[in-house]
Amino acid sequence: MRNRKINGFSKLSKEQKLEWLADNFFEENSDAINDLTRFWHKDKELQSVLDGFSENTLSNFIMPYGVAPNFVINGKTYAVPMVIEESSVVAAASSAAKFWQRRGGFKAEILSTKKLGQVHFSWKGNAAKLYSVFDELKYELKTQTAHLTLNMEKRGGGVSDIQLLDFTNQEPDYYQLLVGFETCDSMGANFINTVLEAYGQTLRHFVANHSTFVGSEKELEVIMAILSNYTPECLVRASAEGPVEDEEFVNKFYKAVRIAQIDPYRATTHNKGIMNGVDAVVLATANDFRAIESSCHAYAARDGQYRSLSNCTIEDGIFKFWLDLPLALGTVGGLTKLHPLAKRSLELLGNPSAEELMMIVASTGLAQNFAAIRSLITTGIQQGHMKMHLKNILIHMQANESEMKKAIQYFDDKVVSFSAVRDFLGMIRKKKASRPTKVV
Amino acid sequence: MRNRKINGFSKLSKEQKLEWLADNFFEENSDAINDLTRFWHKDKELQSVLDGFSENTLSNFIMPYGVAPNFVINGKTYAVPMVIEESSVVAAASSAAKFWQRRGGFKAEILSTKKLGQVHFSWKGNAAKLYSVFDELKYELKTQTAHLTLNMEKRGGGVSDIQLLDFTNQEPDYYQLLVGFETCDSMGANFINTVLEAYGQTLRHFVANHSTFVGSEKELEVIMAILSNYTPECLVRASAEGPVEDEEFVNKFYKAVRIAQIDPYRATTHNKGIMNGVDAVVLATANDFRAIESSCHAYAARDGQYRSLSNCTIEDGIFKFWLDLPLALGTVGGLTKLHPLAKRSLELLGNPSAEELMMIVASTGLAQNFAAIRSLITTGIQQGHMKMHLKNILIHMQANESEMKKAIQYFDDKVVSFSAVRDFLGMIRKKKASRPTKVV
Repeated sequence: MRNRKINGFSKLSKEQKLEWLADNFFEENSDAINDLTRFWHKDKELQSVLDGFSENTLSNFIMPYGVAPNFVINGKTYAVPMVIEESSVVAAASSAAKFWQRRGGFKAEILSTKKLGQVHFSWKGNAAKLYSVFDELKYELKTQTAHLTLNMEKRGGGVSDIQLLDFTNQEPDYYQLLVGFETCDSMGANFINTVLEAYGQTLRHFVANHSTFVGSEKELEVIMAILSNYTPECLVRASAEGPVEDEEFVNKFYKAVRIAQIDPYRATTHNKGIMNGVDAVVLATANDFRAIESSCHAYAARDGQYRSLSNCTIEDGIFKFWLDLPLALGTVGGLTKLHPLAKRSLELLGNPSAEELMMIVASTGLAQNFAAIRSLITTGIQQGHMKMHLKNILIHMQANESEMKKAIQYFDDKVVSFSAVRDFLGMIRKKKASRPTKVV
Repeated sequence: MRNRKINGFSKLSKEQKLEWLADNFFEENSDAINDLTRFWHKDKELQSVLDGFSENTLSNFIMPYGVAPNFVINGKTYAVPMVIEESSVVAAASSAAKFWQRRGGFKAEILSTKKLGQVHFSWKGNAAKLYSVFDELKYELKTQTAHLTLNMEKRGGGVSDIQLLDFTNQEPDYYQLLVGFETCDSMGANFINTVLEAYGQTLRHFVANHSTFVGSEKELEVIMAILSNYTPECLVRASAEGPVEDEEFVNKFYKAVRIAQIDPYRATTHNKGIMNGVDAVVLATANDFRAIESSCHAYAARDGQYRSLSNCTIEDGIFKFWLDLPLALGTVGGLTKLHPLAKRSLELLGNPSAEELMMIVASTGLAQNFAAIRSLITTGIQQGHMKMHLKNILIHMQANESEMKKAIQYFDDKVVSFSAVRDFLGMIRKKKASRPTKVV
């Protein structure tokens, strides 16, 4: 009898967890456990480092780790590490990188590096009173957290500014401290959150003890204190430009970008293509792709409609293509040094600063976008895509060379699917089996 | 002399690619190549399947594969597979799942399953003329692609509707075919794109050959034909509700959600937490997280301001918490069966339909959001986060038990960072070494 509820799962050993899953969830006679354990790394110490990243870890989920060479960014040549499971992405990035390498490469620049955090709180009182002691409060916040910010300040970062925002016209009694941070080469989440949580405590004590406040004004409820993943002031621009060579192509390209500016349905897919490139490098360097995704997409919606993140102009015979992305990335801290391949990714990139990594990531996003639009407005994306997908399925089904050839021919004008390929292989294999064999 | 530009990189063998990178990019005497090759799977056939997913694949990038048990969704108990490198996420999902398991679990329902695709085109002519022959065109589009849609129709899917949209008020000569698809248990990208590219050709021929159109009206430029990743009509709702037990907690929770509705800076982080859960399951089942991310975030901005994806009410003593997510997922096709662990993830979930997977993913997102808000409004997130991060660093630095204890005590009121932990360990190890050793 299967029992699918459990207490204390997290306390079980990896082997016990697997056993419980096999007993209660996997199909009978399934070799699932074998499949899960054969991905374990033979180096036990290394495996225990990997297991420590998350909880209830049972196996290693593999994503292809590849490289797109020939990326010239601000005159320097990179081979960009990319972690992505989707076919055609690395090939597209490589091809766009090469296209622009021959035309001077990508330019990239940091527009700003400010990260943000918030202390959200409820307070019943006269807002003017709060503002009247705000300078005192700021002084208190800074001195009470000096021990937390000291190291970051030594590295050139720290808290850059603190604003008090009154939201009471939208929600009763709701205020916010909006805090700006500079976190140098770290993404800074832990630093920012530690400081903000301390700010929350200081804020509460300050209001409780300051002589300006009387009665219920002394009570302040901190709702939560946490960084914002929206970082429109941690912004990088990547661009590529050159003289118009093929007018028809460039005009069509312009239209494709323009459409992604107008129509959110197109913008979503257009930006998804950008993020294919962005996330692949973010993953390869063990940065947090959910944080980057949320920031970039929120930024795409900043003017009240969700739009393309990239832009394009054709002026005086010059084609210019660029994008601005809010990328809060780190090259120290987090998993950047703990994940063995993330560490190698950074080495491959020449151990860049966070700012340099922002420029590499944005350029990869731009390259990806360029390649996707180029495919879409010329051959279409299906031709290349389907060929690769078909090849993957054929490899999986252990097709031989002759079967591969036949399948590629057959699927030239058909929709490739797992079952269609299986049926096709079944058919030609059956035919072959039923042919009379030559007696030697 | 290092040469960082290369022709024909993709044609090199994996070993040759690595050699070229070692010669031209990695640090001298680096053991990077060893690090990259030691992640190769010992089963060569399996490794070649993994390599085939993407291009220029050099190694396997490992993401922790874990499980969150005790997920009750519509009365059925799941152990949800999650692939995520961020600490605390799986623990948080598990803990929220258990909290709600004791209160009847999550409810989920499919609101709609329509996917979308677009043929974008330029045409100079009178729009009314185009609309006047639109029924004929639709007939032509359907009959010309019957061979492509036949299999999908057998499975109960296909093209559901075709609209002609006039955007000429925003961009000269720009029109669009907006096409609705049902793709059953597949995500459907290949099917949709193949049909749309064929639609583009048919459209061009139709206009060129129809007697209604004369002169330049016979020329129509297809700019591009591709699916939209924005799928607001492929929507799933997950919810959880129960009688209010702790009024203070519930009120604070309500405020936290309300703030994420009001303030885009908070909404971005709030939704990022939801996506931590969503993406972990999306990855574990080899669906495309970039597609899901772009759709969900664009949906969060649908009313003109980027807002929380989740909602909360307290009415008549009942706390209700829910979210709607546009999730175009597949349980067949793509890599779902090709990636060995994705296949196991689906087996673990009982080989669900795409609709069932949508409900599981949305519930995991909701659980994640619940857990994040609960932490934020009670203990704060740093306490748990920092403890785990510190432990990871200590394991990586091969700290022994006594060193671990000392470090945990020392960092109780400090910001944990890689360098700070290294310095601390260096200090206590030095102290120990300099102590006079007992002569036995």
